[in-house]
Amino acid sequence: MEDNVVLLDCWASSFGMRVRLALALKGIKYEYKEEKLEDKSRVLLEMNPVHKKIPVLIHNGNPICESLIIVEYIDEVWHDDFPLLPSDAHQRSLARFWAAYADKLYGISKRLWMGKGEEQEKAKNELIECLKTLEGELGEKPYMGGGKIGFVDVALLPFSRWFYSLEKCANFTIKDECPKLVGWVDRCMEMEIVSNSLPHPHKIYGFVLHLKEKLGIA
Amino acid sequence: MEDNVVLLDCWASSFGMRVRLALALKGIKYEYKEEKLEDKSRVLLEMNPVHKKIPVLIHNGNPICESLIIVEYIDEVWHDDFPLLPSDAHQRSLARFWAAYADKLYGISKRLWMGKGEEQEKAKNELIECLKTLEGELGEKPYMGGGKIGFVDVALLPFSRWFYSLEKCANFTIKDECPKLVGWVDRCMEMEIVSNSLPHPHKIYGFVLHLKEKLGIA
Repeated sequence: MEDNVVLLDCWASSFGMRVRLALALKGIKYEYKEEKLEDKSRVLLEMNPVHKKIPVLIHNGNPICESLIIVEYIDEVWHDDFPLLPSDAHQRSLARFWAAYADKLYGISKRLWMGKGEEQEKAKNELIECLKTLEGELGEKPYMGGGKIGFVDVALLPFSRWFYSLEKCANFTIKDECPKLVGWVDRCMEMEIVSNSLPHPHKIYGFVLHLKEKLGIA
Repeated sequence: MEDNVVLLDCWASSFGMRVRLALALKGIKYEYKEEKLEDKSRVLLEMNPVHKKIPVLIHNGNPICESLIIVEYIDEVWHDDFPLLPSDAHQRSLARFWAAYADKLYGISKRLWMGKGEEQEKAKNELIECLKTLEGELGEKPYMGGGKIGFVDVALLPFSRWFYSLEKCANFTIKDECPKLVGWVDRCMEMEIVSNSLPHPHKIYGFVLHLKEKLGIA
């Protein structure tokens, strides 16, 4: 039976990007369905009744929710094409740890681009601290996964598409703080399969400006 | 080589209880080290430098952090004794989803036992809603894992040790709201291996009273 794969997603979502990136790396064909967050489709509400959130992967009719759970599912089902999680159990636990750690970036980033003054400054400092911790984990490895892109790269890289917006909102340069981490982003983006599956930072910034205007915080 | 397993933990922690429960169900011998949260040991700070939090499992010198990641590690390494995660990939993704959902109980419970008045009432209602969602997932199954205790049971059951304290703090009865869920708790606790690995609810309540006094919110 041909696999039927549908992704309910929103183009600017870092969580959605994780799934798109995993699907791209594995070469899985799928149908992409853009959701409007202010007018969620009936299929989204049916497929993720608990959280009502994208991304949702629907594989042969079965919904899978929560981005890291989806990526892990993809890695298990399509195991042989570009494996993401390490085969060693301890290494796998470390990959899960750092992928979960990357989730911190979401809340901090939101406080940064939505905040002003002292609140924004605080979020900026937290973001830098968080990115430095991740840079420490990267160390001298070319990728978070070691010699090649792996689970942690897939979990973390999407947030880098928001870096430009965060820099513009809070007037700072991430490269000055974390040059090695930005080097890692550049290295990943050199791969066409990666860069083609993620939106351009300028497009995200347009989205952020639009959101700020809509929320009356422009 | 004999496995060397050490658990850094705090007896009242629901997250720590998950690990103790998984170790007990699998029949794994380990050394238990109680941590003082106000005076963390050097070994804890070394083994979990990022979060500095219990529980940490140290297996043959390798630290594993974050309760669900630890339980999954235990399930992978000691796979044949009492498997916790289902073997089917989609069922496994559902188990991970509900185990992660159970994490919500921690923050809500904290706001309930620490809060007063309207804030406490709000937390109580959120708790009930969350428990009802979990009761819906239980459905007519004897255990969250189906016919036997599984990953979601291990993730969720520890929070039930706090139910009595929450009821006393906010003057309500969880059984009135979620009779089937409480039936599931009773069913799990009938297994000696389970009840012997979790603290008694009255002991937790003593701990809560002590904490409230220390925090000046008694």
